[in-house]
Amino acid sequence: MADSSAPTRVMMAVNESSLKGYPHPSISCRTAFDWTLSKLVRSNPGGFHFLFLHIQVPDEDGFDDMDSIYASPDDFHQMKQRDKIRGLHLLEYFVNQCHQLGIKCEAWIRHGDPKEVICNEVKRVQPDLLVVGSRGLGPFQRVFVGTVSEFCVKHAECPVITIKRKATEAPQDPVDD
Amino acid sequence: MADSSAPTRVMMAVNESSLKGYPHPSISCRTAFDWTLSKLVRSNPGGFHFLFLHIQVPDEDGFDDMDSIYASPDDFHQMKQRDKIRGLHLLEYFVNQCHQLGIKCEAWIRHGDPKEVICNEVKRVQPDLLVVGSRGLGPFQRVFVGTVSEFCVKHAECPVITIKRKATEAPQDPVDD
Repeated sequence: MADSSAPTRVMMAVNESSLKGYPHPSISCRTAFDWTLSKLVRSNPGGFHFLFLHIQVPDEDGFDDMDSIYASPDDFHQMKQRDKIRGLHLLEYFVNQCHQLGIKCEAWIRHGDPKEVICNEVKRVQPDLLVVGSRGLGPFQRVFVGTVSEFCVKHAECPVITIKRKATEAPQDPVDD
Repeated sequence: MADSSAPTRVMMAVNESSLKGYPHPSISCRTAFDWTLSKLVRSNPGGFHFLFLHIQVPDEDGFDDMDSIYASPDDFHQMKQRDKIRGLHLLEYFVNQCHQLGIKCEAWIRHGDPKEVICNEVKRVQPDLLVVGSRGLGPFQRVFVGTVSEFCVKHAECPVITIKRKATEAPQDPVDD
């Protein structure tokens, strides 16, 4: 069973934390990443190639700018630049980690509805595996799986692994991440 | 990143083929097993420990005996023995493959409703990962995910990977497997 074949291409959708803010990754995507490293990659960094996809949702990203005044096209341009920089900082976190561990990776940003963009990118990039984190309600409760992960399991054209956030890591408001 | 930690414990629910019959594994669970070997285990057999769970559904297994006459408790006993042997032969297929590849494994049989038994066994055995195969309707169609895999993604208390059967491997009647 020599590892002569091409590395396993693992696509991972990552997003910002709604609590800690810029440039922290969300609890669930960090959990999913750490789990994938320790339980799948293990001692075999050359066997895996990570593909980090960050999707910026236009409405959501504009939230912080609610009180801003947009008086000219330049203002919108600046906002877009700021969003882009936030996204790049988020991706930097994951790319740095891979770099330190000797795992090859790529990272990019897309805009739109996360669940649709993820499935479209799976179709385009054809990874071997899609990893999606999800918020959960703890080990002994009925578990709620977010619509994004549920949609991906049904529609993505590759195997999908769903990793729930640990109950101990859930914030006070489980909608936060 | 030395592999000093305990092996990743991968639970896999396996079932008989509805087409090829005894003792063949279903297309979807064989696909899921082969995928897990080539894409996750790769060249690291010592890093993984497989846990094969076969669930026998009382009604389904009795189907072949529809025309039999059950005249005494012994008849039922014999039927149960036959079911057990079928189940053991199925598990033997997976245990043999692991043995050849040098992967540690365990295998056992349970009775009941597959989706509930799987989630209960996850709670009891606490694997790192649950692998479930599912029937799919091909890469360019909307994909149908069986209720078992869907239920497990929502309710199993560990990360779950859903692996869809390849469209090219789907039998004429996609309900078959």
